[in-house]
Amino acid sequence: MIPVRRAAIIGLGLIGGSIARELAARRIRVSAYDTDTGELDAAQEGGILERVLDASLSGVEDAELVVIAVPVDAAPDVLAQISDLIGGATLVTDVGSTKSRIVAAATELGVGERFVGSHPLAGDHRSGWKASRTGLFVDARVFLCPPPEAGMATINVAAELWHELGARPTLVRADQHDREVAWTSHMPQMVSAALGLTLARAGIPRDDLGPGGRDVTRLAGGSPGMWTAIASENAAEIDAALAAAEQTLAELRGAVGRRDVDALRQHFVEARQWFDANSGTTAS
Amino acid sequence: MIPVRRAAIIGLGLIGGSIARELAARRIRVSAYDTDTGELDAAQEGGILERVLDASLSGVEDAELVVIAVPVDAAPDVLAQISDLIGGATLVTDVGSTKSRIVAAATELGVGERFVGSHPLAGDHRSGWKASRTGLFVDARVFLCPPPEAGMATINVAAELWHELGARPTLVRADQHDREVAWTSHMPQMVSAALGLTLARAGIPRDDLGPGGRDVTRLAGGSPGMWTAIASENAAEIDAALAAAEQTLAELRGAVGRRDVDALRQHFVEARQWFDANSGTTAS
Repeated sequence: MIPVRRAAIIGLGLIGGSIARELAARRIRVSAYDTDTGELDAAQEGGILERVLDASLSGVEDAELVVIAVPVDAAPDVLAQISDLIGGATLVTDVGSTKSRIVAAATELGVGERFVGSHPLAGDHRSGWKASRTGLFVDARVFLCPPPEAGMATINVAAELWHELGARPTLVRADQHDREVAWTSHMPQMVSAALGLTLARAGIPRDDLGPGGRDVTRLAGGSPGMWTAIASENAAEIDAALAAAEQTLAELRGAVGRRDVDALRQHFVEARQWFDANSGTTAS
Repeated sequence: MIPVRRAAIIGLGLIGGSIARELAARRIRVSAYDTDTGELDAAQEGGILERVLDASLSGVEDAELVVIAVPVDAAPDVLAQISDLIGGATLVTDVGSTKSRIVAAATELGVGERFVGSHPLAGDHRSGWKASRTGLFVDARVFLCPPPEAGMATINVAAELWHELGARPTLVRADQHDREVAWTSHMPQMVSAALGLTLARAGIPRDDLGPGGRDVTRLAGGSPGMWTAIASENAAEIDAALAAAEQTLAELRGAVGRRDVDALRQHFVEARQWFDANSGTTAS
């Protein structure tokens, strides 16, 4: 059980909306704000929200759980705006894909004791309230990044929240998190988008691809706003990972150009060994 | 209905094995050869094969339909080996991902009248007989590449065969086919493998990826032998497509490095527009 009765969600996109649905399904009273009033209306019509907040975010002070679910470049400002309203909260968290800046902001704003940053690996190429759903977090890995001053009790509530939603939380330092996700999430996202862009410029529609090509380009459908914010926020780490990808690609292209079957085979064998070292399941 | 009673399949991997299963299910008598006798034994134990051929391929002369389902670099040699045995065949076809060389070989060997090259877009990262199944070709696009001298009746049998298996055949010239698939299939495959290799070298296991990253790297599990043959066979076209991908990636990395949010947004918006211009379905 999540030990709260009232929650406030700021941002009702795919992640915020899905959290709102999960909490409402557990009879927790949810209030919410979104810059898009259409999203708010839809959520209220769906019976998910007890209360709609306005841009002042007044009302957040009643919530024991506060979830900031806005793009990563906007999250620190939202935290600053509500920092005087969350003295009674048990847990304040966010759900962004980069963690260093928001965790540092929590410390600077003096709310680090009740803050734990969250990053659920539960994205989707779709976005917005209409894509939100219960069950989104089942079996998803969630990184938890507490600032140094976060209380043990706060960390436990964060872990309990995500466990309750079916996810698998792991504690990690914010800077280490940002370096790791640059490789495991941000770089693959950029490669998929670059591939989509390459095909777009060559005049090749996605429908012309086979099932494999559609998989590889699926992330090209990601939210431009969200990924612009992430790329800019975690630029140094992503740059390093992209440089490595570029180099491998150039190497492989060299082997293709030379028709060097030994080098080609070795590249494909190494890639396949990496693939096979894991479950090899085709998780979607 | 496929107007044949006897078929010979040379190569019982994912594609050849799946065709064998489909034909057997339609009471067509299937004989087959594979360099891996284990695959042959498994297929015969499964009741799919009426007859197992040996390396001489003697027996192919009884088949009205002959399917060459070996790696693209081996297919012309197989066609040469059986060219004296297929005078009575209604259709001889192959299933490789490149078509120029096999189609030219059919003409040179004097069997072009009864030959139509096929390329079903029904690959999978898995390979071998154990991955074969009925239904693999349902809704799959299949390119048909006849040599100039192929008879209309032969082309019609090829189209009928693939229709019967649930696929959508399209006629295309072999050289045009090879240029197109360099972009729609081979380049995405190489990018996915390069991404897998990049992560392997960074010591990051595939299990650390989220669902999106697993999609983008799924093709890294492709058959090294098959892809080495394809890359070497279609090298010039793939090189050009990979160069374009490399350039887009370098451009995107430049925008990341400069934290150029306008350029980043424009790249992601263009990629998303390309994605949205199609069904946007998450075909697997």
